[in-house]
Amino acid sequence: MSDTMAKISYTQREQARYLAELKDFLSIPSISTLSEHKPDIRRAAEWVAGQMAGIGLEHIEILPTAGHPVVVGDWLHAPGKPTLLIYGHYDVQPVDPLNEWVSPPFEPTERNENLYARGASDMKGQVHAFLKALEAQIRHGGLGVNVEVMVEGEEEIGSPNLGPFMEQQAAKLKCDFSLNADSGILRPDLPSLERGLRGLTYFELWVHGPSHDLHSGIFGGSVHNPAQALAELLAGMHDRKGRVTLPGFYDRVRKLSKAERADIARIPHSDKGWKANAGVPALWGEAGFSTPERLGARPTLEINGLLSGFTGEGQKTVLPAKAMAKISCRLVPYQRDTEIKKMMEAYLRKNAPRTIKWELKQLSHTPPVLVESDSAGARAAQQALFETFGVRPVFKLEGGSVPVVSMVQAKLGVDSIIMGFGLPDDGLHGPNEKQHLPTLWKGVEAHMRFFEAIATMK
Amino acid sequence: MSDTMAKISYTQREQARYLAELKDFLSIPSISTLSEHKPDIRRAAEWVAGQMAGIGLEHIEILPTAGHPVVVGDWLHAPGKPTLLIYGHYDVQPVDPLNEWVSPPFEPTERNENLYARGASDMKGQVHAFLKALEAQIRHGGLGVNVEVMVEGEEEIGSPNLGPFMEQQAAKLKCDFSLNADSGILRPDLPSLERGLRGLTYFELWVHGPSHDLHSGIFGGSVHNPAQALAELLAGMHDRKGRVTLPGFYDRVRKLSKAERADIARIPHSDKGWKANAGVPALWGEAGFSTPERLGARPTLEINGLLSGFTGEGQKTVLPAKAMAKISCRLVPYQRDTEIKKMMEAYLRKNAPRTIKWELKQLSHTPPVLVESDSAGARAAQQALFETFGVRPVFKLEGGSVPVVSMVQAKLGVDSIIMGFGLPDDGLHGPNEKQHLPTLWKGVEAHMRFFEAIATMK
Repeated sequence: MSDTMAKISYTQREQARYLAELKDFLSIPSISTLSEHKPDIRRAAEWVAGQMAGIGLEHIEILPTAGHPVVVGDWLHAPGKPTLLIYGHYDVQPVDPLNEWVSPPFEPTERNENLYARGASDMKGQVHAFLKALEAQIRHGGLGVNVEVMVEGEEEIGSPNLGPFMEQQAAKLKCDFSLNADSGILRPDLPSLERGLRGLTYFELWVHGPSHDLHSGIFGGSVHNPAQALAELLAGMHDRKGRVTLPGFYDRVRKLSKAERADIARIPHSDKGWKANAGVPALWGEAGFSTPERLGARPTLEINGLLSGFTGEGQKTVLPAKAMAKISCRLVPYQRDTEIKKMMEAYLRKNAPRTIKWELKQLSHTPPVLVESDSAGARAAQQALFETFGVRPVFKLEGGSVPVVSMVQAKLGVDSIIMGFGLPDDGLHGPNEKQHLPTLWKGVEAHMRFFEAIATMK
Repeated sequence: MSDTMAKISYTQREQARYLAELKDFLSIPSISTLSEHKPDIRRAAEWVAGQMAGIGLEHIEILPTAGHPVVVGDWLHAPGKPTLLIYGHYDVQPVDPLNEWVSPPFEPTERNENLYARGASDMKGQVHAFLKALEAQIRHGGLGVNVEVMVEGEEEIGSPNLGPFMEQQAAKLKCDFSLNADSGILRPDLPSLERGLRGLTYFELWVHGPSHDLHSGIFGGSVHNPAQALAELLAGMHDRKGRVTLPGFYDRVRKLSKAERADIARIPHSDKGWKANAGVPALWGEAGFSTPERLGARPTLEINGLLSGFTGEGQKTVLPAKAMAKISCRLVPYQRDTEIKKMMEAYLRKNAPRTIKWELKQLSHTPPVLVESDSAGARAAQQALFETFGVRPVFKLEGGSVPVVSMVQAKLGVDSIIMGFGLPDDGLHGPNEKQHLPTLWKGVEAHMRFFEAIATMK
């Protein structure tokens, strides 16, 4: 029996203990957004620190931030080998609507092969899985890489203090690349890795017409209605093929290779199911792309809000003074938010009529992320997943944004491998969140194989 | 000295008494929308009834409605002659912002040639003027026409009980035509009459996309954003020339004759002043028409409100489930609200994409009004104004709607002459409302001449 096989059978023998520990972790209601749970947040941080100590990590600390603390620990006994920063979070979402939970959210309960509890998949289960993989390695002669572990308590409220924390701790957190375990795979028999994450830039567009609300009978027909001008400007931002018309919008968009499109086509997806899921009469999108391609590989321009004039019940014959739209773009590599803002301004300068004034505010931006599929880390992850599941992993392109990944890139200058073992139907943030246990145990194995693969990579 | 001249010099001699009476009327704070003023509403109704008795009207009654009462009185001693229904209202608008009034709103104060008080122009001054004209006639041998006077107390809250009242009192209110004195002229030296009033039809348009709000990262790019679909539908409702694109929208629109356009060109108007008044960077409107034509003679389609998704401070990456627009059309003769609704539905059926669902609600409609300029009543009014001012009156086309005029048409089947003696700068509904007294005294004369002219018309 090889060394690796010995460790794997060790982790298999230990599953009962793993499950007991995980239930213990999940019974702490560490809801980061509710201040009455501050003591629970502390207990969860201490639980993580205790685990770190138990599995043999060193320099363990619960470090304060302006909000909830970050737990760190390391194992730095592989001189000359790369250093890996592993990211996780110990906080969880609120549990409303509580009455829809079949079993109480903080009383972890097994049903079939799943463990039901708030945080089971997002992401106490994932944190526990990489800790158990580290434990198995350390107990069987140590790791072939250096590891820094960082588990924060504010992911579910947008990680407001993680950026400053990483700046402050930059020396300690210095690493070659990062593993972000806040993720999942496509099916229990179909492993996957994140290939990319869309970025986001968010705007507020104001159209100002008259200096004050006017009577639509007295002025109507002689003054450009700002709500109408706004509608015209917004309508012009897409063409009939569902493409964004801002000049240059697609110039930097990364083209999909044939191989990548074939890979995306492996993602389990049904347009019929997606349509039912969204509850729309028909799907929509940019011509020439499949739904999974539209969701991950293509940028969007979305109206998130509209407000003008009278919106209450009944009628008011107002010609409004102003109209507002919230507009956000999901960006893909290699689009840049600063350029998108300039394109938006150029579009408005060109198309806004002189009968109104406009004002554009950029509220935020998160850059898109691309995980290079042939980096050492990505190859190690692919190998680990293939060996664990016996199937070549799919590279997913995620439609949403994971701010931590961009933050790690910005503050520490390294890329992240995004690998976790949730499943699409885990019910994150909703009632009856669960983790599929056989997939989680495979996750422990995959993490372990990942550490080993990195150690042998060049 | 002719009979008419004798009456005119009588009214001139009586001006000091008229002013004292009017100040008395104006000192009653008969604000119809504020329930604490209910006793004042009653006092104002009694004041009108007392005046009616004093000038020699008969069958005077303060008739209850579901809201504030209507005061009626008549003088029916011209057998074989037409019957005229004179309309007025004794209620007034609220007085906010009170601190902007130079003199207290219910302490009528003369400055220069103006009398400042809430209701001075809208419309206690106008009611008093026609009552004084009736008085002068009755005291000098009677009228050549039969007169029914109806003064209501709810005009400033939309006359909610006047329709049912007129139905109930249809026999008593039977008449050949009506005089609505709730109006004004263009300048002290330029008399005018209303030629037409725009109507109004008000819609609420809903666009439904997904069955629930979606995450714009997860679904963005695969689902048609209802706010975007709404913007596209709204943008398509106007062309680049400012014309409404609904097929058939202009089919019934009454064409302006050369003579009418010349008459409209006599209306004192400056685009520069109008622009400053509205506070817009530039005026806007349907190509091929002047601003006064756009305001009175041309229909509009106006967005009165827009609402979709997230409209609070900051950002939320929602792909909204629905989007709503309040849309109203100002209608001109001979457009019909029922047809406008069908046009709107046809437009939506043709242009709405199958990726969304739409719903159109018609909230209300007030028909447009056209006062025939060569009816007996209109000719009498023109003659009276010409004799009083020495200038041929301008026929105005009003942009707003006066629901009472349509109501009288609908309930009693008669047209209204709309003739009053306010001025454009009287500050109706605002602070420092005033009535130009020399114009009001001319109004008494004009009303008297109007009664005489009707009596001799065929």
